[in-house]
Amino acid sequence: MAIKVHGSLLSTATMRVLACLEEKELDYEFIPVNLRAGEPKKEPFLSLNPFGQVPVLEDGDLKLFESRAITTYIAYTYAKNGTPLISQDPKKMAMVFVWMEVEAQRYENAAAKLTWELCIKPITGRATDDAVVEEYEAKLATVLDVYEDRLANSKYLGGDCFTLADFHHLPTLNYLMGTKIKALFDSRIHVNTWCADILARPAWKKAFAMKDNK
Amino acid sequence: MAIKVHGSLLSTATMRVLACLEEKELDYEFIPVNLRAGEPKKEPFLSLNPFGQVPVLEDGDLKLFESRAITTYIAYTYAKNGTPLISQDPKKMAMVFVWMEVEAQRYENAAAKLTWELCIKPITGRATDDAVVEEYEAKLATVLDVYEDRLANSKYLGGDCFTLADFHHLPTLNYLMGTKIKALFDSRIHVNTWCADILARPAWKKAFAMKDNK
Repeated sequence: MAIKVHGSLLSTATMRVLACLEEKELDYEFIPVNLRAGEPKKEPFLSLNPFGQVPVLEDGDLKLFESRAITTYIAYTYAKNGTPLISQDPKKMAMVFVWMEVEAQRYENAAAKLTWELCIKPITGRATDDAVVEEYEAKLATVLDVYEDRLANSKYLGGDCFTLADFHHLPTLNYLMGTKIKALFDSRIHVNTWCADILARPAWKKAFAMKDNK
Repeated sequence: MAIKVHGSLLSTATMRVLACLEEKELDYEFIPVNLRAGEPKKEPFLSLNPFGQVPVLEDGDLKLFESRAITTYIAYTYAKNGTPLISQDPKKMAMVFVWMEVEAQRYENAAAKLTWELCIKPITGRATDDAVVEEYEAKLATVLDVYEDRLANSKYLGGDCFTLADFHHLPTLNYLMGTKIKALFDSRIHVNTWCADILARPAWKKAFAMKDNK
């Protein structure tokens, strides 16, 4: 039975899962969920995710939510397919987990807020709150200063190879590249090189192109 | 060489790591870091964690920060010691990862804010902001409603066994049990049973007792 992804192409979390399946060269069926109609907050979706948010992955009888848990499951379960995304060396994997946490707890906190204010609100006809943008721009800059130091000594955040630690950044990074926040990434030489590298990955381009083909 | 933990017993993230080492019955050296003196924001600590926060774990030449990355490393590397905390079954481990994400992204968001307002601010002579408490109390209640449904059908959040998914809650849960927020846990029968179970774990009690012995 093919893997199924219930989600929305507007959702950064859904894009994270779709791009992961592309990196692993796995076949899947995409089942669109209508966010504007409030479908995630109603049955039958709530039985898939009681928090009422996309995406949900079905792999046989297994039903998973939380995008980073899904990508971790895919990376471990389909370790031999496509791009590894994890390390089999426990010490190297420990560093991948460290930078996965940094993304989830520090980068995402600022990046998601900025994506919401500068990208999603304008799309949905709401006004951007400039004070919020200023606050989270400063927070993101602090995180990127640490990234700049790390990437001066390591090709990728998790180590020498592209892993989930880098990969998880892609959906919000892609959105922010279309805003004034791009300057924060461009002005840091190692961050800039890293961004160009990971945004150019064919799997990401393929997942992102689904938006245009819809 | 023994495992070293640089941290503070006031820090919930440090307590998470110490209790994990107790669950795994591992020897370790605790190296206190003085938060009030701003030690985490200065060298030599910044070389251990560029974000300037406790805890940091040293295991031989490996230096790790981010408490949940540290516990995940310990659980995988010392899988055969003490309490397993992870599952060797990929599908069962997928569910553990789902509920680890729920804790980190949803529970912690509310619980950490409430712990700060109701526990840490009073200790450090600052006034609690009642409006913030009200806002995050409502958010925590929504998360606990989902927990109540989950725990009606599963002894622990991640499945049949106690894992990192439950374990990661302990430090803030312990703080909140001493506040009016306890009522949110007490009023949900399955959540209440789960709380009593995990708070009674000898490893947690041993780590927590370090505060009294200091």
